[in-house]
This record gives sequence, C-alpha cells and structure tokens, in this order.
Amino acid sequence: MKKHNFSAGPCILPEEVLKKASEAILNFNGDNLSLIEISHRSKPFVAVMDKAQKLVLELLNLEDKGYKVLFLQGGASTQFLMTAYNFLNKKAAYLNTGTWSSKAIKEAKLFGDLVEVASSKDNNFTYIPKEFEIPVDADYFHCTSNNTIYGTQLKEFPTTDVPMICDMSSDIFSRQLDFSRFDLIYAGAQKNMGPAGTTLVVIKESLLENVQRQVPSMLNYKTHIDKDSMFNTPAVFAVYVSMLTLEWLKDIGGIEFIEKVNNKKAELLYNEIDRNPLFKGVVNKEDRSTMNTTFVLTDESLKAQFDTMCADAGISGINGHRSVGGYRASMYNALPLYSVQALVDVMQELERNN
Amino acid sequence: MKKHNFSAGPCILPEEVLKKASEAILNFNGDNLSLIEISHRSKPFVAVMDKAQKLVLELLNLEDKGYKVLFLQGGASTQFLMTAYNFLNKKAAYLNTGTWSSKAIKEAKLFGDLVEVASSKDNNFTYIPKEFEIPVDADYFHCTSNNTIYGTQLKEFPTTDVPMICDMSSDIFSRQLDFSRFDLIYAGAQKNMGPAGTTLVVIKESLLENVQRQVPSMLNYKTHIDKDSMFNTPAVFAVYVSMLTLEWLKDIGGIEFIEKVNNKKAELLYNEIDRNPLFKGVVNKEDRSTMNTTFVLTDESLKAQFDTMCADAGISGINGHRSVGGYRASMYNALPLYSVQALVDVMQELERNN
Repeated sequence: MKKHNFSAGPCILPEEVLKKASEAILNFNGDNLSLIEISHRSKPFVAVMDKAQKLVLELLNLEDKGYKVLFLQGGASTQFLMTAYNFLNKKAAYLNTGTWSSKAIKEAKLFGDLVEVASSKDNNFTYIPKEFEIPVDADYFHCTSNNTIYGTQLKEFPTTDVPMICDMSSDIFSRQLDFSRFDLIYAGAQKNMGPAGTTLVVIKESLLENVQRQVPSMLNYKTHIDKDSMFNTPAVFAVYVSMLTLEWLKDIGGIEFIEKVNNKKAELLYNEIDRNPLFKGVVNKEDRSTMNTTFVLTDESLKAQFDTMCADAGISGINGHRSVGGYRASMYNALPLYSVQALVDVMQELERNN
Repeated sequence: MKKHNFSAGPCILPEEVLKKASEAILNFNGDNLSLIEISHRSKPFVAVMDKAQKLVLELLNLEDKGYKVLFLQGGASTQFLMTAYNFLNKKAAYLNTGTWSSKAIKEAKLFGDLVEVASSKDNNFTYIPKEFEIPVDADYFHCTSNNTIYGTQLKEFPTTDVPMICDMSSDIFSRQLDFSRFDLIYAGAQKNMGPAGTTLVVIKESLLENVQRQVPSMLNYKTHIDKDSMFNTPAVFAVYVSMLTLEWLKDIGGIEFIEKVNNKKAELLYNEIDRNPLFKGVVNKEDRSTMNTTFVLTDESLKAQFDTMCADAGISGINGHRSVGGYRASMYNALPLYSVQALVDVMQELERNN
C-alpha cells in the first residue's frame, strides 16, 4: 500500500517524477549511461540545468525582470550566512517568526549589526507579528515566508524600500505572490521542488552592486551567476529531479492551479481540527500555514490509540517537530487531497470511538 | 550497448549500485516510500548515514584513531575555504600541483598568509615537485593527492610535524596509503565514491583545538561533528549511493584489492601509450596518475579518425579537459579492465590503419 506521506521534508514528490528519476539512474536520455555517471558539462545535463532555471522564472512570473536562478548546495542553512556575507555591510533588519528565522539571525550577526524588527518568540512563535517598522537605512530586510516547525505563514509582506530577502523553503511554488517584490528568494529543494541536496536561489542581478566585502568564491553569488550555476559540479541528481517536479507543476497548471488545491487541503484539515472536540490547532487562526498544520489532542491519553489508527491507515510522518511536540501534517504540493481526507477520516473515527 | 565510460567525474559507478539506487527511488527499505521522500531523521536514513561513516573508517583503516566522518555539501570547492576558515590562523603551506591546488590557494589567501612550498606551474603542471620544505610554524600543509586535469599523482607524501590536509577528490579509495598521517582528508564524492552532491570529510577530532576564529555554523567542522553530520538536511540520495558504493568496494576486497585492479588498468593503458608511435603521454612518467591518464596523438591529423573509432567502440568521455586538450582516460574504481582493453584495442587498430 502506498503511504499517505505527510513528512515535513524531505517529503512527498509526484509519483511520475519518482518514476522518471528512477529510470534516469539506469539510462538517462536514451544514451545508455546513468544520469549520475555523466559529466555535468555534457550537453544533456547542461540542458537540464537550463530548463530548470527557465521553469523557475516562468512559474514565478519573473521572466525578463532581471532575475537569475541558481541551484546551489548547502541548504537554506548556507543561505543564512551567504546572504549576510554578501549583503550585510552595516545593519540588516530581520523578522523573527521561528526556528529558521532565529538561525538566520544568529549567522548574520557575525557580519554586522542586526535589528530584530519584531519577534513572536514571546508566545512560542504561534503567531506572525504584524506591526513593525523596517529601518530605511537597513542593508536589507529578511523574513521567512512559512514556518515549517510551528505552522505559521506570512499572508502579507511588508512594503519597504530596502531590498527584501526571503527564505521560502517550505512554501515556494505553493501560492501566488508578486515575487518581483523580492530581491533574493532562497529555498531548500526538499519541500515543493525536489529531493534534499540542492537549494534554489532567485536573485535580482542588480543586488550584486551592493556587495562591498571580499567574499570567498563559493559563497559569492556573483561567482555562481557568472558561471550559470556551474562554477563547480552541481548536485546533478537533485537538480534533475527538481526540473522534473517543476515540469510536473507547469503541466498541471502552475502555481495558480496548485494554490487552489493547497487551499482545499488546508480547509479540509483545519475545518476538522476546529470541529472535532478531540483536536485543537496550535497557532493563531489567521496565521495558519497552508503547508504545515500543527495540532494537538485535547486529551493526551488518546495518543496511543490515534497513532495506531493513523499507522493502520497508512498515514506517515505526522509527528510534530521534536522542539514542539503534538502533530504536524505537512501538505506540500505533491500531497493529494485524498491523503488529507484519509487523515480526516481517522480523526472522525477517533471521535466516534471515544 | 553499455558504454565504456571514461568520464572524469561525475563518472562510472558500479552497475549493482545503480540498480539499487534506482529501486530505492521507488521503494526504499521495503517501506513503500521513496528514499527521497522520507525524513532524513527517520530510522532507515539515520542507519544509512551511520553505515556510510563506519564504512569510510573501515576502508581507510582509521577505526578507533580519533577520526570523524562527515558527508557535507558544496564540493571540494567549499572545502578550499572551510579548511582555511577553520585552521588558517597565521600562515599555511600549500603545494601547487595543478588547477585544484591553485584554487585552494586562492581561497585560503582570504584568511591568512600563504607559503607556496613548491609549484609545477613552470611546466604546465606536468610533474610533481619533490624537493620542498614545509615551514615548521605553518598552521598546516595542504596538498592535492591526484590532479584530475593534468593526470599527475603524488606517490609519496612529505614527512612533517604540522597538520597535513589533503584534497583526495580524485583518488580516494583507489590505493593503500597510511591515511592516519593526514589530519583532514576531503573528497568530492563524484569520482570513486558516488554521485555529485556530497563531499566526504575525514577529520582528526583533535584538530578542532586549533580553531581560533569565529566560524559561521555551516562552515564550522565542529557544528557537523557535534551533530553526526546531520546538523541540517544532508544530501540524502548522494549519501545513500555513496554508502552503496563503499559497500560494493568492501565486498570485492576493499582498497587492497581495487588497488591491484587499478594498477593493472593503468599499466595496460600507459604501456600502450609508450609502445604505440601514434600516441604520447603528457606528464612525467614517475608522476603518472593511476586514475587519470592524459595523452595526445603524435599526428594531430588522425584526430577525426581516432574519435570516430572510439565512438564506434562505445568509448565515452575521453576528451581532455578544456584547459589542457588532447585526451584523458579516467579509470576510476568502477571502470572494468575490459573497458581499458577496448580503448587499447582502438589505439592498436588506429596504428594498423595508418
């Protein structure tokens, strides 16, 4: 039985993508060579990189707007320091909405002054601060669009004249936004884009003019832009699977279509959480993430029973993050609506049984 | 027809490894989930990471000698700066034997003084300098064990009291060495270990005592050691395939066995290059690499003919690096002896025809 995979990341990918990826490991491009044993500078792979970059710009509606697309290594965690290494000259403004924002802040502090414009740490990151001011002389403003661990999501982004940098690791390609408002977007692939091992960076090329520090080659965005993301050997497999996933997304109707599906999935699960007396949501209603739903049992003694029922129904990956506890159902792009229905069914069955 | 894959990297991997990797993309561990859609903190993947680390220590004969094994991201290119960021406090000594050494030197210069103890640049890196002195007050000595691009290889390593750091990207696991003489070894996976996307670091834990600088988390070896190489999401697929390849190597007899095969392959090809009047080796005989054989035609007008004959015989990936020209046959661990024989056959056929 195929599982209902609610894993927070690495996470579910479209089945047709997995099939194509599996085939490419044996025979890529009909050349009788594996995808992973050919040169990254060979024509077939250069075409993959090129296509992946084009698909990103197309899906985000950023074509011909001065943006470059990079597939780097090292995860969002490396972007925490790279963004600061490149662009923090004097002072930067950060919105602290959870574990990942806090980590970004920690790394940036090595490179200059930090202004935390607002933080929801006072209430264990269960809400998104709305009222804050971004200093006009900040080098940039940094925020995290979706908080994978706590299950909150920025619904609105501030209006500011300083460059806006956003960690969109866990909700990129899930909803329509005016992506041209951002100067740099980064995202680990392993949620809506592909397997772990590559990190998407979408950067407005003009932002490079702000670099004042001497940056080591591998941490320098310019290095990678100048070499079309092929300065060194990229994570070939992860880039290929990302390309396949972006292709899949385009084919089913792009972000416009998937956003509707994602909203339906979120509505279905949150409605059940709010209706069912055995469950309770963790975060502020208006800040609820469409990607990661955090909830707890109102009666902790039902935990063993619920866990067994979930396992029996093939529901996988809904344990809360070790730093939060409870449950977390991650509903990324590739998770079908019927998987959410399966979870809701179990929640209702638990209610009937008790 | 399966090709004879002489690619310089990413390169040939054992067929059984490719088969297992392809299967794991569809169903890993019999759990009806893909390897790339499960949490990296799930038991099955933690077991993969653990096994890969143990296999490295076992194969390198470094068990219980104070070494830690990391699977990082960012390639050897990131190690160029990480080694210096962590360990270059005042001055470091580098041996310059080619493109990769030169790049390592360039990055290290951002962090302190560099002493180039010797260089073979004067003769386009066609030899390995033998006579040089390592300053006793250097923070460390850095060298590149095998030069993928030029086709030279260090047969002997210097005796020194300063910590020894070695980039073994293109010949690790190919020959027996006293690996305990090195304090830090790094290697991009995509030659003898696996696909592109992960970088092996084997580090003597006591070396951490030398760190004086405040290093960003992701660039700090201590961060990764403290979290057993799971500080952030690792490149799951690349680590898994590396584990499979290390397992394969152990099963066929480890480095002791593969070294004999590698020597046979190298002997076969170099003998033909020396015997056949139509070909000429590029580098000093005593410094010839067993991994990458560089050679040229003595009569350039035969190029089109030779290239066609190679293509017809299914020989792939023997074009020289764009910075050197000529030919380069890379004969990594997974390349069978019969592939080298196939190349030698074509070389002899070319001789008969002309």
